[in-house]
Amino acid sequence: MKKILVIGAGRSSGALIEYLLKESSNIPARITVADGNLDLAITKTNNHPNGEALKIEVTADGIENHIVAAHDIVISMMPPHLHPPIARQCLALGKHFVTASYVSSEMQELHEEFIKKGLVCMNEIGLDPGIDHMSAMELIDDIKSKGGKITSFKSYCGGLVAPESDDNPWHYKVTWNPRNVVLAGQGIAQYKLGHQIKRLPYRRIFQEIESFHFDAIGDYEGYMNRDSLSYIRQYGLYDVATMCRGTIRGKDYCQAWSVLIDLGWTDHLTQIKDQNLTYKAVTKSLLDGNCESLSEYCQVNKIAPKICEMLIFLGLEEDKPIGLKSYTLADALEQLIVTKWAMQPMHKDMVLMRHLFEFELDGKQSKLQSDLVVIGDGEGGHSAMSKTVGLPLGIFVQRLALGLVEETGVMIPISANIYKPILEQLQELDISFHHTMS
Amino acid sequence: MKKILVIGAGRSSGALIEYLLKESSNIPARITVADGNLDLAITKTNNHPNGEALKIEVTADGIENHIVAAHDIVISMMPPHLHPPIARQCLALGKHFVTASYVSSEMQELHEEFIKKGLVCMNEIGLDPGIDHMSAMELIDDIKSKGGKITSFKSYCGGLVAPESDDNPWHYKVTWNPRNVVLAGQGIAQYKLGHQIKRLPYRRIFQEIESFHFDAIGDYEGYMNRDSLSYIRQYGLYDVATMCRGTIRGKDYCQAWSVLIDLGWTDHLTQIKDQNLTYKAVTKSLLDGNCESLSEYCQVNKIAPKICEMLIFLGLEEDKPIGLKSYTLADALEQLIVTKWAMQPMHKDMVLMRHLFEFELDGKQSKLQSDLVVIGDGEGGHSAMSKTVGLPLGIFVQRLALGLVEETGVMIPISANIYKPILEQLQELDISFHHTMS
Repeated sequence: MKKILVIGAGRSSGALIEYLLKESSNIPARITVADGNLDLAITKTNNHPNGEALKIEVTADGIENHIVAAHDIVISMMPPHLHPPIARQCLALGKHFVTASYVSSEMQELHEEFIKKGLVCMNEIGLDPGIDHMSAMELIDDIKSKGGKITSFKSYCGGLVAPESDDNPWHYKVTWNPRNVVLAGQGIAQYKLGHQIKRLPYRRIFQEIESFHFDAIGDYEGYMNRDSLSYIRQYGLYDVATMCRGTIRGKDYCQAWSVLIDLGWTDHLTQIKDQNLTYKAVTKSLLDGNCESLSEYCQVNKIAPKICEMLIFLGLEEDKPIGLKSYTLADALEQLIVTKWAMQPMHKDMVLMRHLFEFELDGKQSKLQSDLVVIGDGEGGHSAMSKTVGLPLGIFVQRLALGLVEETGVMIPISANIYKPILEQLQELDISFHHTMS
Repeated sequence: MKKILVIGAGRSSGALIEYLLKESSNIPARITVADGNLDLAITKTNNHPNGEALKIEVTADGIENHIVAAHDIVISMMPPHLHPPIARQCLALGKHFVTASYVSSEMQELHEEFIKKGLVCMNEIGLDPGIDHMSAMELIDDIKSKGGKITSFKSYCGGLVAPESDDNPWHYKVTWNPRNVVLAGQGIAQYKLGHQIKRLPYRRIFQEIESFHFDAIGDYEGYMNRDSLSYIRQYGLYDVATMCRGTIRGKDYCQAWSVLIDLGWTDHLTQIKDQNLTYKAVTKSLLDGNCESLSEYCQVNKIAPKICEMLIFLGLEEDKPIGLKSYTLADALEQLIVTKWAMQPMHKDMVLMRHLFEFELDGKQSKLQSDLVVIGDGEGGHSAMSKTVGLPLGIFVQRLALGLVEETGVMIPISANIYKPILEQLQELDISFHHTMS
């Protein structure tokens, strides 16, 4: 009997916990769901005979040692800064550790110690990062094994709203941390395009975009993620001419967001201490050329009426006090999008992913497009985000509990031994890619 | 015999310490100069019979208590985050505290306690903030006392290089913290112009500028500081139509710096971990439209050849590795300006300040311009920055030691009792404003 501990019972843990409980008798395993909020943990274990709900205290040093000690595998669904302390607890007590988050340098430093103890520290095994790595590596390994040479790889992913629940001009709703949506792109995006290294500053990230069409879904666009260059090494594509990784948004989203950036609405540096200041007054103060309104500003700057409507939809000209004590414009904007882009219980979310390969094989130039579309279950079911983050994690943990994982150390799921069985199992759970060659 | 402690014997403390030592016999007072670097403190006290050099340890909690206890007045020339702990030590031990830095909210909270103990906690009594407050308030109080109504107040200040030492196309050299020069303007600038509140995002701060001419000095320009609005209340100008505070730079500086911002060279968010990356390669990667060089980029974007030369002068196209282990583009740019804009020992710096008032008096519209020009002594002497920061501070401390300061609590120098005698004494030391009415 294996003992599996899931730390964190929030929204994105739903599909993971359900999967582990469903498989618990076959493994066999007992699943402990631990959270600061006991009710949340109880809801998620749902009286399952192999499940147990636990209230825990989480500090900067991790959780109570005796709880880690009582389990074989620990899954952290906590905020990223808590992963390293929990991983160090696992190391000290001889337990495996699994998370869907990016490998931090602090985590990477534990690599040799995890190997020395014969333990697994798996990271980046959710959706993005996670399914993106696994599905890309499967195709890369396949093309290479046939003697192909990959010249271009572009990969885009987005957490969006399903077309049937799409009722606003941005074609977007908040399905994860709204803070990250507001601050997206701040910094420099680095990528490779046609043998050239390119760097985009913040003001250009939402301007130099790619457009896509997904059959039966609609038109979308993608902006560059901060770092595409490090994947050249990670994916072993050393002589690739183009390497781009980006985020998918609805059509026109990027152009409208770019206007918000230009105006200054995403600034997170300057604190304003005026509770009574209204959205309308801030917007007016940001318009250059003494424009009186967003409409006038858009007209003067040749911004399409459709984009202008998107901006007005957000409430940027509402005569409503911001109401915060001390805030940046990014904080004030976050308040707006949380309301205007709110998911209602009946709304379905959607995950889109697209890989675009160009490669030479048998003297011929070929293109391969690989698409993933996952729609949430809607009211009472799991979100597409919860399924695509939780199920690969769950499948991996199941295999780890069954003794089917041979590698040890700090890793991400890019070796065939790891990704093949997970992608096969995901396909059975209706998370599968659709390939088009041309 | 009063005992005065100066914490910090760096470059900007020179004129302050010399002034206090010169006045020490008249007060009478003993001056202790304390620094982590004893040699620096010894150089500054220069064997003066009333001076003493001391090596100290500075921690996040301040300095050793017994040193504070042995003095009557403590001056902190340390980095701003150390002022509140040292001020709290002064409070606990019954000592006066003086600094040239901005009042932080942490410092403001100590106001009632300083009053209760009958102690002074003076802040913002250097150049900017400092001389700007005092000289502005003298004119404001004067205009008001005659029944005038101020409708517009603009105030600009800059630490620059003297024309005789100006040997580069930016007309600028680093006379203070180069980090602040690189990050200048990041955030939102807030000001009031013609009854309208205006907010400039970072990308526009170096574009919406004001031009000035200083007689016998040359042409300059000014960009907006982050916060002009709070001075409406501080200076008691409640119904002013225009309130702008800004920073002075040489002609064309702002336009060229704006290109650096547009390119992304001032980004401080994205860490790059490539030691061998060259300045040339980074610049090329940042140029949009696939431009091959800054010259081509400037041509395409209709940027004047003169501005292009300024950019090239910085070394942005040098085939030289950046050489840092992990860095942002702002870090890499800072390395360049520290070299290209270095002050040599024979170079003289210069401080410029200009106040521009518009007011109604006796039914007539009038304008008043008030200029300060201070040139550094050059090799072996004090810099203009050291004099303009240190002398107002020294004069205030002298008056405090002589028992001539009646106010208590956390304050800045905006009351006539405080600023009048200081401005008079500064005039005798050749730091004086030149007024022009029109």
